Amino acid sequence: MSLKNRNLVTIDDLSNGEIEAVFSLTDEMSELMDKQSAVCRGKIMASLFFEPSTRTRLSFEAAMHRLGGSVITAVDGGTTSLAKGESLADMARVIGSYADIIVIRHPWEGAAKIFADYAGVPVINAGDGGHEHPTQTLCDLYTLLKERQTIEGLNIALFGDLENGRTIHSLTYALARFGANIGFPSNAGRELPEYVKRKLTVEYRGQFKKYKDLPPAIQKRLFPLDAVYITPSSPHQLAMMPEININIEIKLKAMKAGVDALYVNRRQLERLSSIAEGEGLKEDYPVIDKKFLKGKEYKEALVMHPLPRVDELAYELDDDPKSMYFKQAARGVPIRMALLTLLLGEKEISIPAKEDLSVPKRDYPLYRHDFGFIDHNSKCVSQLDTEKRYIKPEFKIVSKEPLTLSCVYCEHEIHPQYIASSDPHHEKSLDSRKYHSANTYWVRNIKPENLIIFDTEDSAKENGFKPSYYAGASRDRNDPGKVSKEQ
Amino acid sequence: MSLKNRNLVTIDDLSNGEIEAVFSLTDEMSELMDKQSAVCRGKIMASLFFEPSTRTRLSFEAAMHRLGGSVITAVDGGTTSLAKGESLADMARVIGSYADIIVIRHPWEGAAKIFADYAGVPVINAGDGGHEHPTQTLCDLYTLLKERQTIEGLNIALFGDLENGRTIHSLTYALARFGANIGFPSNAGRELPEYVKRKLTVEYRGQFKKYKDLPPAIQKRLFPLDAVYITPSSPHQLAMMPEININIEIKLKAMKAGVDALYVNRRQLERLSSIAEGEGLKEDYPVIDKKFLKGKEYKEALVMHPLPRVDELAYELDDDPKSMYFKQAARGVPIRMALLTLLLGEKEISIPAKEDLSVPKRDYPLYRHDFGFIDHNSKCVSQLDTEKRYIKPEFKIVSKEPLTLSCVYCEHEIHPQYIASSDPHHEKSLDSRKYHSANTYWVRNIKPENLIIFDTEDSAKENGFKPSYYAGASRDRNDPGKVSKEQ
Amino acid sequence: MSLKNRNLVTIDDLSNGEIEAVFSLTDEMSELMDKQSAVCRGKIMASLFFEPSTRTRLSFEAAMHRLGGSVITAVDGGTTSLAKGESLADMARVIGSYADIIVIRHPWEGAAKIFADYAGVPVINAGDGGHEHPTQTLCDLYTLLKERQTIEGLNIALFGDLENGRTIHSLTYALARFGANIGFPSNAGRELPEYVKRKLTVEYRGQFKKYKDLPPAIQKRLFPLDAVYITPSSPHQLAMMPEININIEIKLKAMKAGVDALYVNRRQLERLSSIAEGEGLKEDYPVIDKKFLKGKEYKEALVMHPLPRVDELAYELDDDPKSMYFKQAARGVPIRMALLTLLLGEKEISIPAKEDLSVPKRDYPLYRHDFGFIDHNSKCVSQLDTEKRYIKPEFKIVSKEPLTLSCVYCEHEIHPQYIASSDPHHEKSLDSRKYHSANTYWVRNIKPENLIIFDTEDSAKENGFKPSYYAGASRDRNDPGKVSKEQ
Repeated sequence: MSLKNRNLVTIDDLSNGEIEAVFSLTDEMSELMDKQSAVCRGKIMASLFFEPSTRTRLSFEAAMHRLGGSVITAVDGGTTSLAKGESLADMARVIGSYADIIVIRHPWEGAAKIFADYAGVPVINAGDGGHEHPTQTLCDLYTLLKERQTIEGLNIALFGDLENGRTIHSLTYALARFGANIGFPSNAGRELPEYVKRKLTVEYRGQFKKYKDLPPAIQKRLFPLDAVYITPSSPHQLAMMPEININIEIKLKAMKAGVDALYVNRRQLERLSSIAEGEGLKEDYPVIDKKFLKGKEYKEALVMHPLPRVDELAYELDDDPKSMYFKQAARGVPIRMALLTLLLGEKEISIPAKEDLSVPKRDYPLYRHDFGFIDHNSKCVSQLDTEKRYIKPEFKIVSKEPLTLSCVYCEHEIHPQYIASSDPHHEKSLDSRKYHSANTYWVRNIKPENLIIFDTEDSAKENGFKPSYYAGASRDRNDPGKVSKEQ
Repeated sequence: MSLKNRNLVTIDDLSNGEIEAVFSLTDEMSELMDKQSAVCRGKIMASLFFEPSTRTRLSFEAAMHRLGGSVITAVDGGTTSLAKGESLADMARVIGSYADIIVIRHPWEGAAKIFADYAGVPVINAGDGGHEHPTQTLCDLYTLLKERQTIEGLNIALFGDLENGRTIHSLTYALARFGANIGFPSNAGRELPEYVKRKLTVEYRGQFKKYKDLPPAIQKRLFPLDAVYITPSSPHQLAMMPEININIEIKLKAMKAGVDALYVNRRQLERLSSIAEGEGLKEDYPVIDKKFLKGKEYKEALVMHPLPRVDELAYELDDDPKSMYFKQAARGVPIRMALLTLLLGEKEISIPAKEDLSVPKRDYPLYRHDFGFIDHNSKCVSQLDTEKRYIKPEFKIVSKEPLTLSCVYCEHEIHPQYIASSDPHHEKSLDSRKYHSANTYWVRNIKPENLIIFDTEDSAKENGFKPSYYAGASRDRNDPGKVSKEQ
Repeated sequence: MSLKNRNLVTIDDLSNGEIEAVFSLTDEMSELMDKQSAVCRGKIMASLFFEPSTRTRLSFEAAMHRLGGSVITAVDGGTTSLAKGESLADMARVIGSYADIIVIRHPWEGAAKIFADYAGVPVINAGDGGHEHPTQTLCDLYTLLKERQTIEGLNIALFGDLENGRTIHSLTYALARFGANIGFPSNAGRELPEYVKRKLTVEYRGQFKKYKDLPPAIQKRLFPLDAVYITPSSPHQLAMMPEININIEIKLKAMKAGVDALYVNRRQLERLSSIAEGEGLKEDYPVIDKKFLKGKEYKEALVMHPLPRVDELAYELDDDPKSMYFKQAARGVPIRMALLTLLLGEKEISIPAKEDLSVPKRDYPLYRHDFGFIDHNSKCVSQLDTEKRYIKPEFKIVSKEPLTLSCVYCEHEIHPQYIASSDPHHEKSLDSRKYHSANTYWVRNIKPENLIIFDTEDSAKENGFKPSYYAGASRDRNDPGKVSKEQ
């Protein structure tokens, strides 16, 4: 079996079995670190970093060199200029004609998907805004696996900025898929985004539970934790380039570190994880240091961090054999060697025969109509002027009640308030060219391929639709007869 | 025959036969794209980009890697800083001692020539300000050749910013030399620079004619066009780097797309090209889209563009087999592989035996005196403080009536108003240390090696010259007796 | 013998014999420049330039490529951003896990030492602020050696900014160690830093003498000079990057070029060097041109310069066979090839059997206490917030009278005013928790391992110490009885 010409845009682009095959090749690659291999001789990797980065970029480039391949690099610290320039699609097509594989980091969420759609060669996402960073997740998973032999059933606590940490998003999906339990502290303002939570619960069939609501027997089984994972207290994009202004005010505002969000994986309903219950309230960002780790729940915990650190991880832990962060970084090279080799088709893989733990991908119906501007995430690549020239909005309809659409580029979700049908003849009971509240039973009656959505009534009217009897939001969604019309 | 140690500063540095030899090797190189060749193993290419660029740089670097060579890269997005730093000559000498070949892009016109003069290794111009970009021209020509088998007699329409488009300048020379007909729309404010026009008419012996003034039989033969070539609506230097401020106001001002400038190549006087006669007036920049191409004159036209595009080329054309722009870009790699191989002397060439179509270079007399500052182009490398320390002004005397000097660096032309002789003893009839109007018959009497020029009478006086009887501008240039002295 | 895994942070990291071994391999490498060697195939050099640089970086990268190795590069023109980012130690550890050898340039003095301390792979200092630039010194020395066959006894004049010229600092140490005589003009405001002078006199046992105070016979032996070496008139960091603002006002202020500081090497007390005695006063920076070199003392002098030049070296000298500056630059490639090969352990060396001229390193006692902030050099890496998280101040106690401590990172020296003992029980005669003036005989009584220093009395008091009878600064340092207590 081959991964040739596959992309790695989100961690879900690899099945659990495929991830294990990558790790198996990683073990081989680790042996080769001292002598250059010729596995990728004659191949060119384009390393395109439109956000400051040193670590990830150099790790990929070192990996390609160790494989005997060549590298062409473009680094751009500015982001605003991109809007004035060419589209990602054009850039992807041109660079795709120069190189055999592309690694891209970009500040816009979904940018890596555009590249994958247009480049004609394999594309690896090295971070697209606040969306995903799947190769960091591979480093994290591989480290856990090397230290604990398995991911299934591990109790992992995640600290830090869970809202904007793209490494966290990719990681939670992977941990969930491999059957780990994940603990999240309740940090107001930095919680996991809703769309990540939905994916964890609906797609990976997990549950979120408060620690204190768990039966004592289960509480007990959660400790000691296998690992704590903390993200930087300020974005490392500041590390190398001075020009970027990121609003870090939001990120640094006071947070409560007390635990009340618990993610319970679908396969391990009996095993729940919790962290820092006893931590009480804390101003500002958590700091992992020797004192913090004295709690008995941490006595066997690996300390993990995607690096670079700022203040949230004390230097006094560096010599502790349970500190994994430099190992996570160092393992990035053989992991990326394995990945490049496989996507370039220079080696075949054999998927381990044992049951694949990953949740099969759902085939949601797609929403592609372009009625009015669908404003869902100002950092989404589909919202940008340069890209709108060729991208049509595209959403997965992931839920009908409440009506929920997930952008295929950035995965942010919207909950449109008004709906209509593009084909009233197939849905006789609907008036032609009328719009309805999304909060009525009619949402079930419109076929996905005919669905039209609007943010506001004004938007619906501008597109030539009139309010139906069911345009009021308060109508009973199960019984259209029971209506007390608003106005 | 070998191109070893030759430079490619302007497209005229290669004869037609040599260009065809490059293309012949390009065909071979295209076969090698999948496997690394060892043709240039052990050779180092320095890739120096003092202007933002991704495409051209990565294309050159990919080419060198595909040949098994190595690359050292310096990228600098700022331009003002260069004036504070070292001279181009010093940089060329030092980098020339590190690398085996140098590729340079620079915002100053003539910068590549300085590098070629001092580096001691072959230098390829990857764009020097608004002057030339010869390897883009090779991509354009090669693409035309692959699609139409010949350049001779093709009817090519050029759209866009012909004034500042360095790719256009190099391309017009090459098209003229290979015998194509070129159509220019009348775009006020963006026309071809005068010096380009002079070169096309005088050096390549072409004619500019208005389409409407052509005999109907010839008008008819011009259609359908073989290709339309459009330049970006704003400089792509903005694409990757945020710091550069280029005054784009001039570039974006309204223009008329109606045709009235027609370039007629010397060999094909009977074949003229025209474009867009029926287009009427258009506000702002032209846009090539499906609607535009519906005109019958475009029915077989290839659509060409140097990329990156901004708004002037619609995405809806991307799937059209006549759209060449991604092919132009992709072909840049094998073309540059061929070029690097030949300039490094790793392969010999055999010039096709058939008649070489190119116009032989003229040996114009040189003007090297340094009386006063000769202000001709603020972007010319010879005008910059760092370079004035070692560069003397140097001009070709390309015409005596009117007196016209062409800068050897930027090729901009000047028309000095006053002249004198540095050696009055050889020219008895001239008063010693007197200056004359350039607009008199005496311009013919002064030998080129003795010619001194002045911009103004004040400048002449500051340099110790006095007005002669022929200093007035209105004297009859053919009969010095017929003078009605002014003032 | 092997240099494998050694660092080159300061020129003193290599003994004279080792330097000669590097030069011997350089001779071999010069032969290989045309064909790629495979000596370092499979090895990766990380090229980290946190200050603008083209020359040095490209020279290192070209060297690694000529050896068949690979290069990963990070360039950052901004410096302030680093303070917001990660620590040097973290960066060193991570990059050290990607690459086999690291070359670093950094604006902070001592940064290369930190990298060497933490990277786990060999580190080469390519310039750390105003501290050292040892590979430039190797280029300078090698050039002198190739042209004059020996360094011992050469008379070398140094011009320019001796205060901030890191290339000068490394060079003076090396010249002193190899037994050259060095002449310094008296340029107020740009003289050698005190710590460099102390090292030259105390560690290399040289003497500074005024030229006019020398016996005439010795004066005579100093001429003609073997080489003049001039530094750029403004920092070349401006050359490539526009964003950096360096205060060059200080550097450009008027200076006197008259000679009055003479450095006399310990081994050649009879041979002294002088320069420009007759030059008289000069406003602003010296300029080396044909006129300057007409003095008979320069008739055989090589002209040397680290490049890039600004205005201090006239272009008219470029064709003079005694002008060495382009040779210095060109020789950088084979020298760095030799150095990389040796530090990577790809070749062994044999130290020439002849007597090693270098001064053995002194083992000074270390001062590591952390009482109060020891402010000694705002550009020292140990003074920066990011680094203070893990670095403790560390000084060599290089002299007791006057008490002088030299920072192990930047080598700047401090002369603390107040002292105390951390262990009063071992030093009975001292009151417990009392501080004393450093200017008393008690400084000799406190064991180095117990020494505590304070900048001010306030600082001592804040740390819980009280003034002793010997806290006044005017006490007789040899006789504690003879005290006329102040205030």
